[in-house]
Amino acid sequence: MSQFTGNHILSVNQFDRDAIEKVFAVAHSMEPYARRQKRTTVLDGAILGNLFFEPSTRTRVSFGTAFNLLGGEVRETTGMSNSALAKGESLYDTARVLSGYSDIIAMRHPQAGSVAEFAEGSRVPVINGGDGANEHPTQALLDLFTIKRELEYNGKGIDGLHIAMIGDLRYGRTVHSLSKLLCLFDNIHFTLIAPAELAMPDYIIDAIENAGHKLTITDHIDGRVEADICYQTRIQEERFPSQEEANKYRGRFRLNQTIYTKHFQSKTVIMHPLPRDSRMEANELDNDLNSNPNLAIFRQTDNGVLVRMALFALTLGVEDLVAKYERDVVWYTNKSQ
Amino acid sequence: MSQFTGNHILSVNQFDRDAIEKVFAVAHSMEPYARRQKRTTVLDGAILGNLFFEPSTRTRVSFGTAFNLLGGEVRETTGMSNSALAKGESLYDTARVLSGYSDIIAMRHPQAGSVAEFAEGSRVPVINGGDGANEHPTQALLDLFTIKRELEYNGKGIDGLHIAMIGDLRYGRTVHSLSKLLCLFDNIHFTLIAPAELAMPDYIIDAIENAGHKLTITDHIDGRVEADICYQTRIQEERFPSQEEANKYRGRFRLNQTIYTKHFQSKTVIMHPLPRDSRMEANELDNDLNSNPNLAIFRQTDNGVLVRMALFALTLGVEDLVAKYERDVVWYTNKSQ
Amino acid sequence: MSQFTGNHILSVNQFDRDAIEKVFAVAHSMEPYARRQKRTTVLDGAILGNLFFEPSTRTRVSFGTAFNLLGGEVRETTGMSNSALAKGESLYDTARVLSGYSDIIAMRHPQAGSVAEFAEGSRVPVINGGDGANEHPTQALLDLFTIKRELEYNGKGIDGLHIAMIGDLRYGRTVHSLSKLLCLFDNIHFTLIAPAELAMPDYIIDAIENAGHKLTITDHIDGRVEADICYQTRIQEERFPSQEEANKYRGRFRLNQTIYTKHFQSKTVIMHPLPRDSRMEANELDNDLNSNPNLAIFRQTDNGVLVRMALFALTLGVEDLVAKYERDVVWYTNKSQ
Repeated sequence: MSQFTGNHILSVNQFDRDAIEKVFAVAHSMEPYARRQKRTTVLDGAILGNLFFEPSTRTRVSFGTAFNLLGGEVRETTGMSNSALAKGESLYDTARVLSGYSDIIAMRHPQAGSVAEFAEGSRVPVINGGDGANEHPTQALLDLFTIKRELEYNGKGIDGLHIAMIGDLRYGRTVHSLSKLLCLFDNIHFTLIAPAELAMPDYIIDAIENAGHKLTITDHIDGRVEADICYQTRIQEERFPSQEEANKYRGRFRLNQTIYTKHFQSKTVIMHPLPRDSRMEANELDNDLNSNPNLAIFRQTDNGVLVRMALFALTLGVEDLVAKYERDVVWYTNKSQ
Repeated sequence: MSQFTGNHILSVNQFDRDAIEKVFAVAHSMEPYARRQKRTTVLDGAILGNLFFEPSTRTRVSFGTAFNLLGGEVRETTGMSNSALAKGESLYDTARVLSGYSDIIAMRHPQAGSVAEFAEGSRVPVINGGDGANEHPTQALLDLFTIKRELEYNGKGIDGLHIAMIGDLRYGRTVHSLSKLLCLFDNIHFTLIAPAELAMPDYIIDAIENAGHKLTITDHIDGRVEADICYQTRIQEERFPSQEEANKYRGRFRLNQTIYTKHFQSKTVIMHPLPRDSRMEANELDNDLNSNPNLAIFRQTDNGVLVRMALFALTLGVEDLVAKYERDVVWYTNKSQ
Repeated sequence: MSQFTGNHILSVNQFDRDAIEKVFAVAHSMEPYARRQKRTTVLDGAILGNLFFEPSTRTRVSFGTAFNLLGGEVRETTGMSNSALAKGESLYDTARVLSGYSDIIAMRHPQAGSVAEFAEGSRVPVINGGDGANEHPTQALLDLFTIKRELEYNGKGIDGLHIAMIGDLRYGRTVHSLSKLLCLFDNIHFTLIAPAELAMPDYIIDAIENAGHKLTITDHIDGRVEADICYQTRIQEERFPSQEEANKYRGRFRLNQTIYTKHFQSKTVIMHPLPRDSRMEANELDNDLNSNPNLAIFRQTDNGVLVRMALFALTLGVEDLVAKYERDVVWYTNKSQ
């Protein structure tokens, strides 16, 4: 049992540094199960309501997998076109009904604030899997968990970190949430690289400055960026006032092996919230980085399973029982490699 | 083993009073599992084919949850647009194929009679989850089970019950099926409150009268209605000949706390098949009833899980083995409250 | 452990006769579990990623059921419209991410070659569940397994078999793959009955002839066809240059009881990849054959579960452990009949 037991996970704002460190400690303890070195059935009989009123294959499957890895079952729904919500049912009613069918709910919905509204009607804990432009706390936590792990590998910690955030910092929900979490730590250096049109919002800038962190703002990558982490995002050209305007920026926020070598340290970890668009001529993260060992994008998604397992275990109060219901894995697996 | 073992559940017409009471006794025995006081794995290894050729999130999830709570697995399909049925395959072929993949099937389909036709080709028991305007027997059973439980709480039984049914009694499949089931009991008083255009069909009226029950018919709520149960339904305005005609009835079949206090007893139980449309100005069941302890609408959906668990257990012949495969629940839950 | 352990199943071309016989031996050993005589939990804790980027209800459910019958869990996705692939993500990225969520993947995708491309990025074994016009190896294996079993029942083996293939042999992926597998056996007699426009492609003809098998080619069913197996396919009339052209062939490749009695042996086994279109006036396989005991079409789909269980067990290296994790089935079942 912990402060998490029985409670909702709706926003990064509800986390302080202690809470984050608790989540990360539990996430770390989940690794043997995620890597199939051991099997646990601690949640045998528990049911996750995996309610994706807005489709998102990977987030949905990641939540479902995390619950299965703890021994639980998953009932799910995808899309809203045929749901009672589309027929005018209130989120309160939907929550009252669907929370009767499960022990915990992971929910995504296109409308900002909808998950919190749903949670008020729910009789079981609700984890926000993304509510429009508002919040996606498990993404922010998995990003920060990835940073912690990658830096540990380089012998460092989050305190004192230098992170460069590149691209669309205005609309990118993930960089906002991650910045908020980083503000809880000490002595962070934020280098924000974005076109003026897509600059980081003022309230995040204020939060960074009020917390006493170091801030560098620029509209292009210039010279050496001595960052530990390069967090790249997607630039959507349709967000510029005109195609001419967009063309001016094309390629200036791109990252490939040549640009990486020129501007970053040899150990700078490359992150991205995914998916990256491989159709563009000059996309934000070229495939020639795939063989770069510092490309952490797939370790991010792997870490998402650990973080979601941790949140389920904490919310359902079983974080100390996981190992008690452990057994051997008998099938072939290469997850431990 | 019982009369249910290995047989289909297709229609309320196949139930007599003894059968209903058997289902309700088993449903009652499911409560510790549905409330997560205990876990059972009696159906460990069994597979439910949850075939929703017409989408219905809550009914689908309710069936799936009920099966999971007995320890079984769920394979499911939603929608028909990509199914072989859409490519001209007969229901017989579909049934022969899909029944090879599961131990029992719950099926919804938009076409009346389709589930019975499917059942003829199926090699495993089929439970009708709604076939268009025709039948939705598990809804009728959960409604009656709710009535029984709510009345027990008030120290009464189904025999001698006074039920008011309000709204669209013509097209509302649920009130037809519920009326049929109630006719199997003794000395029921039906008060039917509906506009003439949406009156209860003659064959239900005949059934009520032939069974010797008391019948009151009116087109508006007037004075005190001394009902034990107020079963409210949705009025769909598009079913009236004109908007002017619809406007004449607007609000006359609405229920809110003021109307409830004026017309009903302080213990009258409020039921509704859900979903209720919260977009309308004067909807059929106002949110101000949410704090009324007699509002049973969410107990109805909870009871649906118990009734579906009972039907699965009876159909698969394990109703006496459930407790034998019992174990403790170790995670946090508030389902027992 | 076997040659299959940890490897992908992408194409029939990767199978030699020994490999096929290994798959069939394991498939045969799965029968007690598929028939619910016993339950096994050998894959308890393992997760199948059932990724159907192109919908196919029965193939998807068959894979899912097969995995459940071995004790594993299933996470799945249907359709591509909302996936990251639709947003321009490369198959490599999708594979890297989604393979982090499961122990093995079954995948269908509309584009030829896509599954193999996905497999290159996957960190877990991938089984091809159909990639457009290219390959559907589990269908070919279940077809051949059905042939083996049906002939065994008649006291024969695959060597020396006479098979008639009828209908659309040009576009029918299943007859191409089945022909390739049959070429691995000895002394097969292929009778190919198709309109010239829909004749078997030359590369299959060449393969049959190069392997020294007997070949009879005709454009209509004539006289007695002394075949052990009649493999019927669908003729899609829109594939002819004109409706007039199609009309000339209408009914010439139909099979009903009268035509069967006239042209085939009393023991000739009737197969079809399903679904068959029951809307057409003269469809390729009339319903009057449903009572013919040689109609093996539903035994084909049942056998699909056995073959997929075998491929999962072999790929995950547990084929010798299945019986070790065996327990009794306690619920009612008629699967053993």
